[in-house]
Amino acid sequence: MSSARTLIRGGLVITAADEIHADVLTEDGRIAALAAHGSAAAESWTADRVIDATGRYVIPGGVDAHTHMELPFGGTSASDTFETGTRAAAWGGTTTIVDFAVQSVGHSLRAGLDAWYAKADGVCAVDYGFHMILSDVDERSLKEMDRLVEEGVTSFKLFMAYPGVFYSDDGRILRAMQRSARNGGLIMMHAENGIAIDVLVEQALAEGRTDPRYHGEVRKVVLEAEATHRAIQLARVAGAPLYVVHVSADEAVAEITAARDKGLNVFGETCPQYLFLSTDQLAEPDFEGAKYVCSTPLRPKEHQAALWRGLRTNDLQVVSTDHCPFCFTGQKELGRGDFSKIPNGLPGVENRMDLLHQAVLDGHLTRRRWIEIACATPARMFGLYPRKGTIAPGADADIVIYDPHAEQTLSVTTHHMNVDYNAYEGRRITGQVETVLSRGEVVIDQRTYTGRAGHGRYIPRGTCQYLV
Amino acid sequence: MSSARTLIRGGLVITAADEIHADVLTEDGRIAALAAHGSAAAESWTADRVIDATGRYVIPGGVDAHTHMELPFGGTSASDTFETGTRAAAWGGTTTIVDFAVQSVGHSLRAGLDAWYAKADGVCAVDYGFHMILSDVDERSLKEMDRLVEEGVTSFKLFMAYPGVFYSDDGRILRAMQRSARNGGLIMMHAENGIAIDVLVEQALAEGRTDPRYHGEVRKVVLEAEATHRAIQLARVAGAPLYVVHVSADEAVAEITAARDKGLNVFGETCPQYLFLSTDQLAEPDFEGAKYVCSTPLRPKEHQAALWRGLRTNDLQVVSTDHCPFCFTGQKELGRGDFSKIPNGLPGVENRMDLLHQAVLDGHLTRRRWIEIACATPARMFGLYPRKGTIAPGADADIVIYDPHAEQTLSVTTHHMNVDYNAYEGRRITGQVETVLSRGEVVIDQRTYTGRAGHGRYIPRGTCQYLV
Amino acid sequence: MSSARTLIRGGLVITAADEIHADVLTEDGRIAALAAHGSAAAESWTADRVIDATGRYVIPGGVDAHTHMELPFGGTSASDTFETGTRAAAWGGTTTIVDFAVQSVGHSLRAGLDAWYAKADGVCAVDYGFHMILSDVDERSLKEMDRLVEEGVTSFKLFMAYPGVFYSDDGRILRAMQRSARNGGLIMMHAENGIAIDVLVEQALAEGRTDPRYHGEVRKVVLEAEATHRAIQLARVAGAPLYVVHVSADEAVAEITAARDKGLNVFGETCPQYLFLSTDQLAEPDFEGAKYVCSTPLRPKEHQAALWRGLRTNDLQVVSTDHCPFCFTGQKELGRGDFSKIPNGLPGVENRMDLLHQAVLDGHLTRRRWIEIACATPARMFGLYPRKGTIAPGADADIVIYDPHAEQTLSVTTHHMNVDYNAYEGRRITGQVETVLSRGEVVIDQRTYTGRAGHGRYIPRGTCQYLV
Amino acid sequence: MSSARTLIRGGLVITAADEIHADVLTEDGRIAALAAHGSAAAESWTADRVIDATGRYVIPGGVDAHTHMELPFGGTSASDTFETGTRAAAWGGTTTIVDFAVQSVGHSLRAGLDAWYAKADGVCAVDYGFHMILSDVDERSLKEMDRLVEEGVTSFKLFMAYPGVFYSDDGRILRAMQRSARNGGLIMMHAENGIAIDVLVEQALAEGRTDPRYHGEVRKVVLEAEATHRAIQLARVAGAPLYVVHVSADEAVAEITAARDKGLNVFGETCPQYLFLSTDQLAEPDFEGAKYVCSTPLRPKEHQAALWRGLRTNDLQVVSTDHCPFCFTGQKELGRGDFSKIPNGLPGVENRMDLLHQAVLDGHLTRRRWIEIACATPARMFGLYPRKGTIAPGADADIVIYDPHAEQTLSVTTHHMNVDYNAYEGRRITGQVETVLSRGEVVIDQRTYTGRAGHGRYIPRGTCQYLV
Repeated sequence: MSSARTLIRGGLVITAADEIHADVLTEDGRIAALAAHGSAAAESWTADRVIDATGRYVIPGGVDAHTHMELPFGGTSASDTFETGTRAAAWGGTTTIVDFAVQSVGHSLRAGLDAWYAKADGVCAVDYGFHMILSDVDERSLKEMDRLVEEGVTSFKLFMAYPGVFYSDDGRILRAMQRSARNGGLIMMHAENGIAIDVLVEQALAEGRTDPRYHGEVRKVVLEAEATHRAIQLARVAGAPLYVVHVSADEAVAEITAARDKGLNVFGETCPQYLFLSTDQLAEPDFEGAKYVCSTPLRPKEHQAALWRGLRTNDLQVVSTDHCPFCFTGQKELGRGDFSKIPNGLPGVENRMDLLHQAVLDGHLTRRRWIEIACATPARMFGLYPRKGTIAPGADADIVIYDPHAEQTLSVTTHHMNVDYNAYEGRRITGQVETVLSRGEVVIDQRTYTGRAGHGRYIPRGTCQYLV
Repeated sequence: MSSARTLIRGGLVITAADEIHADVLTEDGRIAALAAHGSAAAESWTADRVIDATGRYVIPGGVDAHTHMELPFGGTSASDTFETGTRAAAWGGTTTIVDFAVQSVGHSLRAGLDAWYAKADGVCAVDYGFHMILSDVDERSLKEMDRLVEEGVTSFKLFMAYPGVFYSDDGRILRAMQRSARNGGLIMMHAENGIAIDVLVEQALAEGRTDPRYHGEVRKVVLEAEATHRAIQLARVAGAPLYVVHVSADEAVAEITAARDKGLNVFGETCPQYLFLSTDQLAEPDFEGAKYVCSTPLRPKEHQAALWRGLRTNDLQVVSTDHCPFCFTGQKELGRGDFSKIPNGLPGVENRMDLLHQAVLDGHLTRRRWIEIACATPARMFGLYPRKGTIAPGADADIVIYDPHAEQTLSVTTHHMNVDYNAYEGRRITGQVETVLSRGEVVIDQRTYTGRAGHGRYIPRGTCQYLV
Repeated sequence: MSSARTLIRGGLVITAADEIHADVLTEDGRIAALAAHGSAAAESWTADRVIDATGRYVIPGGVDAHTHMELPFGGTSASDTFETGTRAAAWGGTTTIVDFAVQSVGHSLRAGLDAWYAKADGVCAVDYGFHMILSDVDERSLKEMDRLVEEGVTSFKLFMAYPGVFYSDDGRILRAMQRSARNGGLIMMHAENGIAIDVLVEQALAEGRTDPRYHGEVRKVVLEAEATHRAIQLARVAGAPLYVVHVSADEAVAEITAARDKGLNVFGETCPQYLFLSTDQLAEPDFEGAKYVCSTPLRPKEHQAALWRGLRTNDLQVVSTDHCPFCFTGQKELGRGDFSKIPNGLPGVENRMDLLHQAVLDGHLTRRRWIEIACATPARMFGLYPRKGTIAPGADADIVIYDPHAEQTLSVTTHHMNVDYNAYEGRRITGQVETVLSRGEVVIDQRTYTGRAGHGRYIPRGTCQYLV
Repeated sequence: MSSARTLIRGGLVITAADEIHADVLTEDGRIAALAAHGSAAAESWTADRVIDATGRYVIPGGVDAHTHMELPFGGTSASDTFETGTRAAAWGGTTTIVDFAVQSVGHSLRAGLDAWYAKADGVCAVDYGFHMILSDVDERSLKEMDRLVEEGVTSFKLFMAYPGVFYSDDGRILRAMQRSARNGGLIMMHAENGIAIDVLVEQALAEGRTDPRYHGEVRKVVLEAEATHRAIQLARVAGAPLYVVHVSADEAVAEITAARDKGLNVFGETCPQYLFLSTDQLAEPDFEGAKYVCSTPLRPKEHQAALWRGLRTNDLQVVSTDHCPFCFTGQKELGRGDFSKIPNGLPGVENRMDLLHQAVLDGHLTRRRWIEIACATPARMFGLYPRKGTIAPGADADIVIYDPHAEQTLSVTTHHMNVDYNAYEGRRITGQVETVLSRGEVVIDQRTYTGRAGHGRYIPRGTCQYLV
């Protein structure tokens, strides 16, 4: 099947670097060639299947480098399985996810990774890889890091938040960074001062401030910025690169900016929720705010300008979703009367490419920058390039035919994520995924799902290709 | 001839975004297609001419956005004509230059531009465009700016240095920036506080400090940084983008960095002489330092780190040459006994691509970043994209076959620039241009010049494509 | 008379350094001694006159380092003469002013200074000194600077604004700074980019934006900050200290702060109008805004926080008035229909000490800091210390008995300045000057004026005592 | 005795604010009056004792806000007792120390404080107060803080270093800061990331890097700066002021500077060892470097410029000694073969005033600034003002007659501290303490010790008087 030649004709091919009117030919699941539309070379091509992309964008499939399918958290689990979540990803034009395998305290990385291999095996609609969450940094797990890098799990997430769960102290963080400086791994950091936050949580609850909005108030901007600063300094000591996940606060952006002004290999990711939502949502009455509880938390609207600025001048490099859905009914509700019991996370894997296209129309980003932050850079950052993230001869034929003029309304009634609300309910968007190829196979065909569970393959990754 | 199909086979194609093993097919002077090497699509191609690029890089022809062929300066003229200079450019793998037409005080832009059209017409070896130097900003020249933008001269250089010659005061600068904010033009700035510098020049000469090295001492770092800061603030007032030419000082880089941290459309160019040479050369005895007199001046070596850092994290975006050669004998010698009479300028158009490749080997840049700062970004910055600066279907077939392993020694005895010294004399470089195509025609063939005067065409340019 | 001993008993003596319950004894116009209230030493004192200061503050007489009595400006003259202006100063607790003698273009400093000596001679109510405004920096005036420093005129004001009137270009500024670096003079700078501002003025008027509020809009924050930055850099080149007058904009404070963070001898003065008034006043309808036209202009309220912060952490060191009154009727009215013709300046010499005491009550300043910025530092900055600005044995007996609990309403109906409006009309203030001694003589006695024209003496000044 | 009147005649009285030729009269242990030398008031004075201070400075007794007499550390104790240490202080012109009482883990503040009261009671040569070291922040100790503030122990030291000993985590720090924000206490912070440092210590020892100089290498600049930044951010969250002890690194100064540029109540102390010594000493061979082991550690010489700059522009406010002497023989030697076992600390209480006077001569400080950082500000910072730190009517008669022209050589052979080496051995100093009064009693009389153990009294302190 995937050995068939497919020809995508007449579209505007957009990559991180170029916008060209070109026809794209795939062979055996890979992109074989691009030719100028109307050239003799293009005219001479024949194919088993021809897709007319006239008036459409032809873009690389999205790479979402931060998802949490089926993540156990706070006594429940994220509501999307690898099957439902990757299918929703495909609907949204994302053809690769990198999810997080979790080490349990007291257990090996191996055990955690194998458990996650098993969860994803044979059920995914699109390709996937794994980062590893380090919950228990000791001599054994440091040694295991080396082996995982060789095996294709080349990035490791640490938490400065969540004491007693995922939290690592500065000594453990330093050791892991030193190790990664040697083995080529990339440390990803959840940068919030969780020790201080937990004091504020306890005080808020003791004073009866239990509503969801207090989740945002106790997780203060300054405590995200502080942790970001600290992680950067520890990385300087270790001589290691650093990738800060879900940056939400202007002062945190400023810390990353200062690091880059010194030429450090420090990178920042933000997420659509921080770009499009704010504490306005978190403060919605009747516990509705619980839908918007995630960590780092949503911030006042004024912070968005710093995030867009960072994305424009490349002080922030990646937009991922941190997709970690919990149903309002039965899951978010666990935190009624105690915001600290609300499972942390928002759905979004399906909406990322569209929201960022809207940002192009709103003047925040150029079209090429849209592809760079959503496809090319995450692929490079996490060792998936050039198989993923671009449209170039030799790359996997992960291609999205995107209709830039289609209008849609984001809604739980139409989305494909397995969760009972949409964080962007009712938002009007211009632009929509029309057709999606994954390694040459059409998995979304003019907005019909034609893929299958198990088509998606595990992709071992190389080391970070974004260092300077 | 150029209608012939040329096939470049087996090389590693490097663009600003991708590194791929691909064959490149040209038709009618343009790039028709790229196909994965060994793919069925590639294998099926036939061509009039096949170039074997095995073991070679296939890169876009360089774009040098800052040259001064035949520039009248200080009673003499730059020693390269458009004929000799563009031929040397071709030898060095640069297939497009953007030179500067000069408005004379009291005369129209039109007159200046027409004079430069005439100089270049019919003699160039590679393609060329023009910026316009504004020497006399008044109502008439402001109106002419609009017409020039429409005509394809979309960038305008102003000088904060050289009072009495090119100098514009802050009011004229502001007016020109306001105009460019409306007509889409891009203001290029020579940022040095020439009014203050002239005081220091006068004092130095009065005190008998007349050697070439005093040229560097009076043109102080802080006076480059000050002017850079001032230009940025004036651009903020005007709401206009700004491109600062030949940035040489660490404090000037810091000013541009601060502007970008605020999200401003401020850009910076540096040149190989600031990256590879220093006041060590300027201080050479027996008036040899005169060879290295240019403005902004060479700086102490310590400044280089800031320049490389800026290039890595994109606070500096472009490396041009500011090629403006004067022979030591008869030209530089005009300043014996008075450094202020030494014609300002260095040769370099032939050496840029090689020096920057050496920077890749030295660990300063990645290969893709090399192409970005030397080809893609200058093309985008000055409205030449996607015709120039990339290898993509539809682009002009300006292609360099580059041997990354060849060794060479830069020298006046082997270079092709019309000047009696080489600023990098004796420097060993790994990497060399082997073959060069300009719009599909081979102008350098395995290090033999096969081009001709008049092949190069004038390229009207669009407006800046680099704004965010 | 002044040979008489005066004893001030029972007050709280506040200086820049100390707050002590002490009795103060004067002899022959100087402070002879301080003794702890109730000590044997204090009890043993006898005096010709005893002032009961129980429940009062005993503070040094204010030093207003920036006034413009009788200044010719825009075809008219400031409405306070030295006689009326210094009398109003006394009423407001200010016992020393430093006014500005003006060099006319084409004339010597000597001629200007002598003219100002003549204006003030024999008419002043309190002591006074002179700064010199340099309007025409050339070899002659540079040489004259040396002589003036020896004579006690140790500070020189330059303007980056007002082209064609007071304006000096960067070369002249640099030369004057170099001279001051050698002769110990202190350069005071009006930091606004007047060349750029005049372009915006012309454009505003051409577009019919003629109301007073456009005076503020064209004199942009960024153009004050730019000039401040530039002046600092020129001072770095010259190796000279710098005092920036009437700082009004947050970005200008940031430039001075950055300079001080580098350890430079850069100082900043602000004025009550920038601390208490804003563009709200400048935008008052019916041309009322003209009352608030001064340069630098009033800024939006948000800027005040940066000024208070600067005063608290000593990035700003002095609060002067820039007292330069013009009557609304007949003077400010010259600018109806053309804001550029409104004489620039506000009255305030009488209100400074009270407004700053109010700032103490409002929590902006400590009591000691009030005395430091209004008395001690201006005295030190301009070479008047320890004669002026403190209460210490040996100092001139310039003493204010201040009632911290009195309430007053600032108003034209009660003030003593010779101008037909009060910039703070109707403002309620807690605190009031009760009694004032100038060199031991009571010039205000329980709010009755007992002084006389001609009591005030010219004070030759030493060089700046504030350098670090 | 102290009821006697003493008259100090003819000296130059220097305080933080003034330099005046004045006679000083004391009554009953307090300063009764100052009178201009030669004035009738001065001439009329009689006294039991007259000290001729002609040609001498008359300065306030020094206030050393950071000493550790008899501190148990690493299995040994600081070698100066309160008796020997305060006597040495008197010799050096310091008439007040604030030492640190220590809470032991698991015990109350009360118990620790009482133990330290007992150690000092009846043996001190000069006055003293106590800070409290918090080793175990819990609900009980938080409540005790309130009581201690009322009792006159108004400052509390926390450690981000020394895990397992004094270390508090960020949650405990935050709680203590919140408490101090309410009760008026001032948090003093040892700012080094001890958790990360301990990793580096372990690695250094494991790799055989055991010499004293590795103590400096593992306690990295960036880990001091990081902790300084973190402490500042936690103080922002708590709304509390912060005093950072023994700042040694340029990047740490930069963090404090940034905080002050925001107007925060953040203060910094440095010590003579960081101003006059460097890693050059720490690297001395034959284990001699152990003499210079303290934490924060000595830094490379280049850091000194930042410290002097901070002292000049008041980003650093205080110079204390952190006097904590351990003999080389028998104490420092505990760390042969393992730098982590070297007791941390240097002697210095006797040398501070002289070293800082030398700094005046070297051009780093003005004379008034010398008194401000060594006497006035520490008194204000720690609630001892106006009893201590100034010469003003009503203040304690703690007065030093200082000979600014005397020459001395610092040496263990002449010093009075109970330790077998002097950290400044052989250093030539101009300036020396001649006579010292403590509350009116002469304790050093022309370089003879005339004091006695037990003269010194415990001084309960008020809260910080330095907030803005």
